[in-house]
Amino acid sequence: MSESRRLLLTLRYDGTGYHGWQVQKNGVTVQETLQNALEAVLAVRPSVTGCSRTDAGVHAEQFCCHLDTTSSIPPEKLAAALNAHLPGNMAVCGCREVSAGFHARYDCKGKTYRYQIYNSRWPNPFYDAYAWRLRSPVDMELLAASCKPFLGRHDFAGFSAAGSSVVDTVRTLSGLSAEAHEIGTGERLICLRVTADGFLYNMVRILTGTLAAVQQGKIRLEELPDILASRNRNRAGPTAPPQGLFLEKVFY
Amino acid sequence: MSESRRLLLTLRYDGTGYHGWQVQKNGVTVQETLQNALEAVLAVRPSVTGCSRTDAGVHAEQFCCHLDTTSSIPPEKLAAALNAHLPGNMAVCGCREVSAGFHARYDCKGKTYRYQIYNSRWPNPFYDAYAWRLRSPVDMELLAASCKPFLGRHDFAGFSAAGSSVVDTVRTLSGLSAEAHEIGTGERLICLRVTADGFLYNMVRILTGTLAAVQQGKIRLEELPDILASRNRNRAGPTAPPQGLFLEKVFY
Repeated sequence: MSESRRLLLTLRYDGTGYHGWQVQKNGVTVQETLQNALEAVLAVRPSVTGCSRTDAGVHAEQFCCHLDTTSSIPPEKLAAALNAHLPGNMAVCGCREVSAGFHARYDCKGKTYRYQIYNSRWPNPFYDAYAWRLRSPVDMELLAASCKPFLGRHDFAGFSAAGSSVVDTVRTLSGLSAEAHEIGTGERLICLRVTADGFLYNMVRILTGTLAAVQQGKIRLEELPDILASRNRNRAGPTAPPQGLFLEKVFY
Repeated sequence: MSESRRLLLTLRYDGTGYHGWQVQKNGVTVQETLQNALEAVLAVRPSVTGCSRTDAGVHAEQFCCHLDTTSSIPPEKLAAALNAHLPGNMAVCGCREVSAGFHARYDCKGKTYRYQIYNSRWPNPFYDAYAWRLRSPVDMELLAASCKPFLGRHDFAGFSAAGSSVVDTVRTLSGLSAEAHEIGTGERLICLRVTADGFLYNMVRILTGTLAAVQQGKIRLEELPDILASRNRNRAGPTAPPQGLFLEKVFY
């Protein structure tokens, strides 16, 4: 036993089997699964604070959380020990000591999310839990053009799930771009990447649904600035499904 | 109803949840899942003949099978209808009429398997069901060198699981090579590709386990020709786990 230290853990998880990050009554969450492993290693059950909530089915290439411990186990050893106790769909990829005042959520300067679209006429079992399938060929030029109106500082109130209690809905998007990877004959994986100082609830999924609606001719490219300015959730596109979404990077 | 036709179906499946291709008592198989979908669409349960057996947990990017039907449904429509009835971990990616004498197994001229190795000190939830993790950095030059002795026509009796009843254990490997893809900091996906006119039971997994044993210094590169010539299963390396193996291509 020693002085209490604050540790920053970096996680990676496949969200398929989880009801998101935050502990809740109706299903297994990432947070409680991590706490189980921590308890097995440290013999106490520390509370852990995540960098954000994630929805059921959403994945993380990098998710950060902090916890306090009086254990003197070296950070590297704790990471390895946790991996020995975690299921295969979750892993610790880093652990380091941070200052006592560090906060995984409040100190987060920004995040990058990736949304994966599987573009093919046939379903693909290997992307079923990791992408949203769009059957018609995606027009990458149109996609690039429809990303532009969202860049910069805007009020994204219309791109937030109804019922959210957040008051300040202004966010700054420093990046929104799309990349297509040919992965076979007539099949492409399209990765949308969104970087912002913060995200409203379901914001990336509603953005993606809106970009898809432009592809399908349901929303015209020219309407996008007006839809954004309207702050009206009903004018934006549908909420894209959770399984295509990956939290990719957390900036401190 | 019309004359009986023979159809060649091309499947893709994530083998994680299946006890291999062939119908058996102790678990759900690919074959019976396909037959369930066929029965739902055609109202009869046709028998289907696969290009090979695959083990529990092994995946297929391309698996071929044939069946006979008196239904007059166009092949393209049958494929789409089957996909509407199949679970997300399996998909039909092609369907065409073939001659009445065509046989998915006997007419197969060769196959390519891919074995995925995830090379990193940390576990990765996204490769947990799709690769074998090797922690120590793989030496790609040594890997390329250790592939060479297996190329060409050899008796692979020592690279076959015990208990197999196959009499002729001579096979011709026309391809065995490895490719490394950097997928992040300190993490690589290494794809081994093996093409042959035919494969013995567990042959790719034993080959992979042997190549890994060379990496780990348990088998010396110079010993490989002798181990192959010995026809002794005990001299080859261990059987690599099933989840890294993908049937990638079937040649007719």
